[in-house]
Amino acid sequence: MAAGPVHPERDNPDRSSDPERSCDPECSCDPVFLLHRGGKIAMHSTVPVADAADLAMAYTPGVARVCDAIAERPELATRYTSIANTVAVVTDGTAVLGLGDIGPAAAMPVMEGKALLFKRFAGVDAVPLCLGCTGVDEIVATVAALAPSFGGINLEDISAPRCFEVEDRLRALLDIPVFHDDQHGTAIVALAALRGAARLAGRPLGDLRAVVAGAGASGVAVTRILLSAGIGDIALADSKGMIYRGREGLNPVKAELAERTNRAGFTGSTEDALRGADVFIGLSGSTVAEQAIAAMAPRSIVFALSNPEPEVHPDLARQHALVVATGRSDFPNQINNVLAFPGVFRGALDVRASAVTERMKLAAAGALADLVGGDLTADYVIPAAFDSRVAPAVAAAVAAQARADGVARE
Amino acid sequence: MAAGPVHPERDNPDRSSDPERSCDPECSCDPVFLLHRGGKIAMHSTVPVADAADLAMAYTPGVARVCDAIAERPELATRYTSIANTVAVVTDGTAVLGLGDIGPAAAMPVMEGKALLFKRFAGVDAVPLCLGCTGVDEIVATVAALAPSFGGINLEDISAPRCFEVEDRLRALLDIPVFHDDQHGTAIVALAALRGAARLAGRPLGDLRAVVAGAGASGVAVTRILLSAGIGDIALADSKGMIYRGREGLNPVKAELAERTNRAGFTGSTEDALRGADVFIGLSGSTVAEQAIAAMAPRSIVFALSNPEPEVHPDLARQHALVVATGRSDFPNQINNVLAFPGVFRGALDVRASAVTERMKLAAAGALADLVGGDLTADYVIPAAFDSRVAPAVAAAVAAQARADGVARE
Repeated sequence: MAAGPVHPERDNPDRSSDPERSCDPECSCDPVFLLHRGGKIAMHSTVPVADAADLAMAYTPGVARVCDAIAERPELATRYTSIANTVAVVTDGTAVLGLGDIGPAAAMPVMEGKALLFKRFAGVDAVPLCLGCTGVDEIVATVAALAPSFGGINLEDISAPRCFEVEDRLRALLDIPVFHDDQHGTAIVALAALRGAARLAGRPLGDLRAVVAGAGASGVAVTRILLSAGIGDIALADSKGMIYRGREGLNPVKAELAERTNRAGFTGSTEDALRGADVFIGLSGSTVAEQAIAAMAPRSIVFALSNPEPEVHPDLARQHALVVATGRSDFPNQINNVLAFPGVFRGALDVRASAVTERMKLAAAGALADLVGGDLTADYVIPAAFDSRVAPAVAAAVAAQARADGVARE
Repeated sequence: MAAGPVHPERDNPDRSSDPERSCDPECSCDPVFLLHRGGKIAMHSTVPVADAADLAMAYTPGVARVCDAIAERPELATRYTSIANTVAVVTDGTAVLGLGDIGPAAAMPVMEGKALLFKRFAGVDAVPLCLGCTGVDEIVATVAALAPSFGGINLEDISAPRCFEVEDRLRALLDIPVFHDDQHGTAIVALAALRGAARLAGRPLGDLRAVVAGAGASGVAVTRILLSAGIGDIALADSKGMIYRGREGLNPVKAELAERTNRAGFTGSTEDALRGADVFIGLSGSTVAEQAIAAMAPRSIVFALSNPEPEVHPDLARQHALVVATGRSDFPNQINNVLAFPGVFRGALDVRASAVTERMKLAAAGALADLVGGDLTADYVIPAAFDSRVAPAVAAAVAAQARADGVARE
């Protein structure tokens, strides 16, 4: 593409042949580092820029007519710019993977990876934006200022509890989808997997008692979506133990959940609450003893989702539970956000949704669960990440629900 | 690329075959509108994402090692992310082309066009960011928050005089290049063309008396760079007439220039000042009478740069002047920013410059002027936009000057 100077990392199509790639002291010829040389994404033109005639169409003077038309009829921006297919992937680098607060530049490889997945699975153009500020007010102001350039905002790896306020305020301010993937991506996929597991167990969701370990972004969101989906009962634990009504020092999000969860009133450890429970969902980064899994109800469901080390080894859990799922690709039933966010945004962008409603998330989970269909087994309660049916099915369900909810602007 | 749902506008390689493209009431089958369907840029992966093994390298769990390494040694972000080759093209949509304050969404086609040119001429990945705020404080805070994701900031189409303060404050805050193209791109190319024209006239720059009509972003920047380059004398006019020391109501930028320009003390119209002047540079959007051009010194130099209507028709000006340049591609000597900004950023990014110094701009102009060499004629004082030597030559000169100025961080 470039006629001018070439960026050696990016523009060399055969990366492995570049001898410079194999001499980094810090990478020891690690193929992961080699792959990351120069980053993983680039911008490209979708129109020709070969000569002055092309330039007169794509740039001045021709472009002025397009600008004029949009200024007069703002809705034309959807048709004549990249805005409607572009999502900002925004982080402040405070809760990156299991690495914690590593800052914006160190978060970039994950955000670029996210952009790869958006493109690969749903044709969405994503722009990684790693912010140099961590205050809720600054993040909200920055994203709000950027919003006219994007069809949606994917928040990523912002630590709890700030992530809840950031998302709530941006949802109130903006008329485009705002979706904190660590919360809702995980929640959608976990609910879909639980639907499959419950069907295998022959139990309606309303019959099940669940325990969620971990009250960060994903633990809170999983609890909320399971409540929306009509789970029988659910109790949530943080690092200090079970969350119950009246516990001292709860932040507002946990205090609100304390009102709506833990009907049995557990006040001790996760292990206590697990005795006789039907479902365990681990999002805690800690461990659970095998005996606690063994003490759950018969035909239990165990989602040990911490990465890279699940709360309990899946081979051990499988000796006691009917269904075991993890976040890892090397075990069956991988609960992976990539099953949700590409399709959710594809569907939302396709109908120019002004928001992602709770029912759009439930619809996404339903579409995922439906794809399993008659193939349901204990080792297959959720589709695989590279199942090409996933993003189109999720997108269709999300778009239809957006129309039903009155947030589509087609 | 996308295995999931396809974006019909973007992913259809044969745009002309899409029947939907030719039925827009607002475009009347205008090829410019057809070209703009779905926007002009897209993101793509530079690494494979074909299967789970690819994902384990480009995303979790492999990516965590790269994040860890950058967290430990922040300078590695240059090598292992897209940051070092990516520029934000930032506007608030207040001074777009000659269209004025049309807002962020209507500005997007121009910013996407800018991104095309960055890629085409210099292999730079540019991200158009059209902001929904116009206050200096908000723009500065937003861009500062975004800065960790970019190797440079190209400000664009922000109205004067706010553009001066926005740029000054960002330059002070950030350790990456901040470059307001409407100012410095135009200034670099105008200086290069003037060097060529002065050489043709056999006059050193220090001998020339110039008049600049227009004291917006580009008029101010052209005046400043000509002062830096040692022009003999220069007088600047705004819509109220000549700018002179003591004129009432001057904003701080004009007041500062009043101290350094207009040695003859012109207080009347541009036409008065033009009598006997050697150089006219129009950046005003208004017109100048043919008689005023005729009353300039013999072998005068006329740059009528307003677009699409030059201050004086080049065919008329050519009857009186030695050299005539315009901003248009359909006349000789096109003063086009695209001769400057791709190479300036390429050079700055290549050495990880912390700023674009005044001398880097002068070096860029010198490199452009040098390319003309022995081919200099009245109709060729500046290289053409598609001259493939331009961006590499400008980049090399800018990078060398960055090293000389101590702002390179290779």
